[in-house]
Amino acid sequence: MSQTARRIVLARRPTGAPGPEHFRLEEVRLPEPGPGEVLVRTLWLSIDPYMRGRMNDAPSYTRPVGIGETMVGECVGEVLESRASGFARGELVRGMGGWQTHFVLPAKELAKVDPELAPPSAWLGVLGMPGLTAWAALFEVAKPQPGETVVVPSAAGAVGAVAGQLAKAHGCRVVGIAGGSEKCRHVVEDLGFDLCLDRHEPELATRLERACPEGVDVYLELVGGDVLWAVLPLLNLHARIPVIGGIAWYNLPALPEGPDRTPLLMRRILIRRLQLTGFLVWDFQHLEPRFRTEVAAMLRDGRLRYREHIVDGLEQAPRALSDLLEGRHIGKFLVRVAA
Amino acid sequence: MSQTARRIVLARRPTGAPGPEHFRLEEVRLPEPGPGEVLVRTLWLSIDPYMRGRMNDAPSYTRPVGIGETMVGECVGEVLESRASGFARGELVRGMGGWQTHFVLPAKELAKVDPELAPPSAWLGVLGMPGLTAWAALFEVAKPQPGETVVVPSAAGAVGAVAGQLAKAHGCRVVGIAGGSEKCRHVVEDLGFDLCLDRHEPELATRLERACPEGVDVYLELVGGDVLWAVLPLLNLHARIPVIGGIAWYNLPALPEGPDRTPLLMRRILIRRLQLTGFLVWDFQHLEPRFRTEVAAMLRDGRLRYREHIVDGLEQAPRALSDLLEGRHIGKFLVRVAA
Repeated sequence: MSQTARRIVLARRPTGAPGPEHFRLEEVRLPEPGPGEVLVRTLWLSIDPYMRGRMNDAPSYTRPVGIGETMVGECVGEVLESRASGFARGELVRGMGGWQTHFVLPAKELAKVDPELAPPSAWLGVLGMPGLTAWAALFEVAKPQPGETVVVPSAAGAVGAVAGQLAKAHGCRVVGIAGGSEKCRHVVEDLGFDLCLDRHEPELATRLERACPEGVDVYLELVGGDVLWAVLPLLNLHARIPVIGGIAWYNLPALPEGPDRTPLLMRRILIRRLQLTGFLVWDFQHLEPRFRTEVAAMLRDGRLRYREHIVDGLEQAPRALSDLLEGRHIGKFLVRVAA
Repeated sequence: MSQTARRIVLARRPTGAPGPEHFRLEEVRLPEPGPGEVLVRTLWLSIDPYMRGRMNDAPSYTRPVGIGETMVGECVGEVLESRASGFARGELVRGMGGWQTHFVLPAKELAKVDPELAPPSAWLGVLGMPGLTAWAALFEVAKPQPGETVVVPSAAGAVGAVAGQLAKAHGCRVVGIAGGSEKCRHVVEDLGFDLCLDRHEPELATRLERACPEGVDVYLELVGGDVLWAVLPLLNLHARIPVIGGIAWYNLPALPEGPDRTPLLMRRILIRRLQLTGFLVWDFQHLEPRFRTEVAAMLRDGRLRYREHIVDGLEQAPRALSDLLEGRHIGKFLVRVAA
């Protein structure tokens, strides 16, 4: 067993797109668990869009990562040493271990990973936070009815792919939006969406209008930008919009040029009596057991499919985050930290 | 009984602020009620912000007023002739009669006005659509808890005045915003808000922050513009924002100059998990009996107070609408069409 660990810390705050220059790889002594704590060897690190927000020194739903601090991230790993009851060496767990090869967390911040239910990496994707996000945003917030039209951007991404399949299984008409023809093909052929529009092709608004002849009842806001403006005029009376993210806006060094389109958005909210609800998965953790039961069953019988985009080695994490934000992946983005 | 009626029709569509030049007064034959219809002599015409929107040839929650058509508006009047069971000559009624001295409506589009419960004009204000708007937006959508902070713009207006008093009676801390010191004095001294800020004074955002040391839990969106931007950073986790109107934006001939602040709004919705809900009073008509019972009781025992801004004569209606949109009034804006 190696006596050192490696970690990636935030070195500088980006103003636009993040790159390797904003991070620093450090070699440190292997941490030791205190009473009630567990030492974990990271196997998988999840790469997610929220990480970009945590690099900013700006008010958010939680405090930013400090300069010199280990970057945040959810991990699946193997217990190396446990000083807590309920966890034994060799068991698989997940927790917010961060961008590092080994981490120590209090037992109460760890959850067991059951490899019988799904492969370990799936606990960071379809059966993890992205999956719970999709499930709760859909069924707890948007509450689509069978027959309604659901528009899912980032349709080939970790959240979008699950959300669209769940909506489809629920009897909705599901229109995806994704960047590029390969993703669109995957979304329709592998994931079973009714349709998927390539947002890189011109005239997105016109194509979306044609794709949604009965308007849009649910729009999962994951991206913002042009996709939002294309969906807005199509939203039906009492449409529901869980606001989960806005990837198109994460890397903006400043607000976009004018005009200020806020009045346009507010007017639509008013005349169509839309409901926009800010969504953070933390608020729905108590539903995780029900989510896990439902989604594991769908995984087992093949109603839910997923793809993973895997890169090898902790040192790839900075590049992985850039690639994620630029959409250079299909499915759940993962770093395999150890085999 | 006069054999002619007068009405005001939409003559031209405004691009910015509306004025008398956009209307035309016409003299017409007194309309005659058909079977099931009622002829009403208008006593009071309500002047409301929504009227501005109906002058635009743009998609809205209902079709625009056509050029040459009578302007829409709610009226209280006296039955002159009834060809419908349930309505008798001399009774007081209210309905969407429009800007005219006499109107004919099907009986099912009229409601009785009980002058024992409140004076006829109050059925267009505190006990009418503005009152129901305030009541339903507050208790059906925003659902404030006692002790929470509620911010009410247009606090001296027909909706704001009722909303703030209802929230106060419910045990909330209520901060009003109004244009000018006279309105602010009225809002605090007569209506009993905890505080009222003059939006014409500089540093609204700073003053509002100081006025809401525990943040804002409910914001009734009636105005948009600078008030929205001042409230936005103060909104607490899970704050509720019924979107009822946006007076600051109604007269805009084009979108405001940049930058585009939409990402700012969406980001706040996300990180604070806000809930924005488009609100139209029509969706809550079924609750009118309960609203009426509750609010009439509060009127009777003096817990709810109201003021009216009255101008005389149908021909004053165009000027009244301009004045309303510029906030040159305190309380409910009414045209007394006949004594």
